Amino acid sequence: MSNGQKMRTQVMIHGQHYTITGTEPTEHVEKVAKQVDAKMSEINARNPYLDTNKLAVLTAVNAVHDLIKLQEQYARLEQEFQSLKD
Amino acid sequence: MSNGQKMRTQVMIHGQHYTITGTEPTEHVEKVAKQVDAKMSEINARNPYLDTNKLAVLTAVNAVHDLIKLQEQYARLEQEFQSLKD
Repeated sequence: MSNGQKMRTQVMIHGQHYTITGTEPTEHVEKVAKQVDAKMSEINARNPYLDTNKLAVLTAVNAVHDLIKLQEQYARLEQEFQSLKD
Repeated sequence: MSNGQKMRTQVMIHGQHYTITGTEPTEHVEKVAKQVDAKMSEINARNPYLDTNKLAVLTAVNAVHDLIKLQEQYARLEQEFQSLKD
C-alpha cells in the first residue's frame, strides 16, 4: 500500500528505460509497465511497420478504449447494485 | 452500436493524424482519441522536455494505471453485489 511518500521505480518498456515517480508501490508500477509492454508488443506484431511513436500512441488508444468500456460496465453494475439495495 | 462491420475513423492526436480501423462506432473512437489527446497534453504540460515517443509511452502507462485501478474497484463492487444477492 502507498504511504503517500514519493517513490521512483525503474521499468523497461519496449526496450527503453523509464523512471516512474509517484506514490504507488513499486509492484503496481511494475504491473502497469508489464501490461503496457505486452500491449505494445501485441500491436507491433499486428502492425510491424509502425514507428515507435505511432505504436505508443496506438497503445494508449487501446488502453483508453479498454478503460472506457470498463467504465460503462462499472456504471451498469453500479446501477444494478443500487436497484438491488433499494 | 456496432454491427460487426469494419469501420475506418480518422482522428487527430497530439497534432498527428491516425486512421483507426475496427468495429467500434465512430463516436466511440473519437471519444477515445479525445481522451488520449487530453492525457498527452496534460503529461506534456508537466514534462515539457519529454520527446513525443516517451510522452506517448507515459500516456499509455497513465491509461493502464487508471484501467488497473478501475479493475480492482470493479472486482470489489462485484463482490459486494454478490454478497448482497446471496
